[in-house]
Amino acid sequence: MKFAIYIPDNLEGPAPVLYHLSGMSCSEQTFIQKTGYQRWASHYGIIVVSPDVCPRVTYGVEKNEIEAKGLSFYVNAVKKPWNKNYQMYSYVNEELPSIIQENFNINKDRQSIMGHSMGGHGALISALKNPGKYRSVSAFAPVCNPSKSPDIQIIFKCYFGDDEKAIEEWDATCLVTKYKGPELNILIHQGNDDQYKEQLKLQNFASACEKAGIAVSINVEDRFDHGFYFISSFIEQHFHHHSKFLCDS
Amino acid sequence: MKFAIYIPDNLEGPAPVLYHLSGMSCSEQTFIQKTGYQRWASHYGIIVVSPDVCPRVTYGVEKNEIEAKGLSFYVNAVKKPWNKNYQMYSYVNEELPSIIQENFNINKDRQSIMGHSMGGHGALISALKNPGKYRSVSAFAPVCNPSKSPDIQIIFKCYFGDDEKAIEEWDATCLVTKYKGPELNILIHQGNDDQYKEQLKLQNFASACEKAGIAVSINVEDRFDHGFYFISSFIEQHFHHHSKFLCDS
Repeated sequence: MKFAIYIPDNLEGPAPVLYHLSGMSCSEQTFIQKTGYQRWASHYGIIVVSPDVCPRVTYGVEKNEIEAKGLSFYVNAVKKPWNKNYQMYSYVNEELPSIIQENFNINKDRQSIMGHSMGGHGALISALKNPGKYRSVSAFAPVCNPSKSPDIQIIFKCYFGDDEKAIEEWDATCLVTKYKGPELNILIHQGNDDQYKEQLKLQNFASACEKAGIAVSINVEDRFDHGFYFISSFIEQHFHHHSKFLCDS
Repeated sequence: MKFAIYIPDNLEGPAPVLYHLSGMSCSEQTFIQKTGYQRWASHYGIIVVSPDVCPRVTYGVEKNEIEAKGLSFYVNAVKKPWNKNYQMYSYVNEELPSIIQENFNINKDRQSIMGHSMGGHGALISALKNPGKYRSVSAFAPVCNPSKSPDIQIIFKCYFGDDEKAIEEWDATCLVTKYKGPELNILIHQGNDDQYKEQLKLQNFASACEKAGIAVSINVEDRFDHGFYFISSFIEQHFHHHSKFLCDS
């Protein structure tokens, strides 16, 4: 597995770390090349880690390959053949942080997580399933309620079969209703012209948060779509958000 | 031919325009996706036009294809078969500006030009061969003296044969010695770890400028190479530079 890491100059001692999870069809290179986040990571003194989006493995199962190739959704798959390598949730929340802690001078008590699209879903479920592990979470155009998105359900059925209960354990909108833990400090941006808006189900997540009494800052921006110009236009706000919880003022 | 154009919001009346010429292996997409320049174009109210780097044409001449495919160097080729389509100098300085003037609300008396690597060479020769046409010119890691760069000479020989006099007419370091016209307002950045430093010949250009009494701001930056992180780190300075000549204060 490849990952990218950005380490600002002139850090003094162990630094906070922000994990970024990319969306489908990306690699560990996409976020670091297209968003200009380094300016803000440098400004706030935050180390940023961007893993690849999936195990680069195919299994020769033609139907599944078409449906799920590269679309890890940052879950731990249960069904064969995907369960062998598609364990991205464990990779992102356990294996990768261990590698980062062992090899870089980070403050393991100060970590946050963010993501885009499928990676926004990954960031939300990582925060929701690990109360207190991440000081803040943010997402650009996240997939919010995959169990209610027919196109995404096709992928989840590759990983979990027809077990609806299992699928709900990986669905941010379902998870938020039973969250118990410290403040999540969630920031979300979505473009009002997002071409995948119908599949993202942001409103379902917003309603579930309200019902559960969980604070979330949701910002829908006119004239922006699902792409990287959207991210680069609001990346400063996301780093500002995380800096409030990661950095000493 | 494709080009990208960025038009800031909230322009009042005809706006200044800055042309950006990319380096080899790029397309009209590269600069707009990887540098984050939009933030500064928006800040200063400058329209930015980024053409593709070459005619996407091959001629079935195997040897030449390997040597020159895609490497327009923004010159007008003389030798067959390249002379048919490889007329990028005329395209950038005449045809494209006409298209821009006819279709967008630009102030044709306020234009500047910049580029990267091969495109830095294109920007410099465009300014040097058209006194007064561009209010300012800037370059990241430009090819400065192609007639003294053996690897680049191979390409130029495809376009001009062995006519050394002709080649000098497309060489920024040769052109600067006989430049007559208004101030060029040149800004150049190069990374001190640029992997192509030996081919760029920045020192030859600096010496020629000094000899000819032409002012040039040259900045060699430690710990930067030839790539897009270098550009995105200093793009703000380049837009600030051009804004001094393109925009009302």
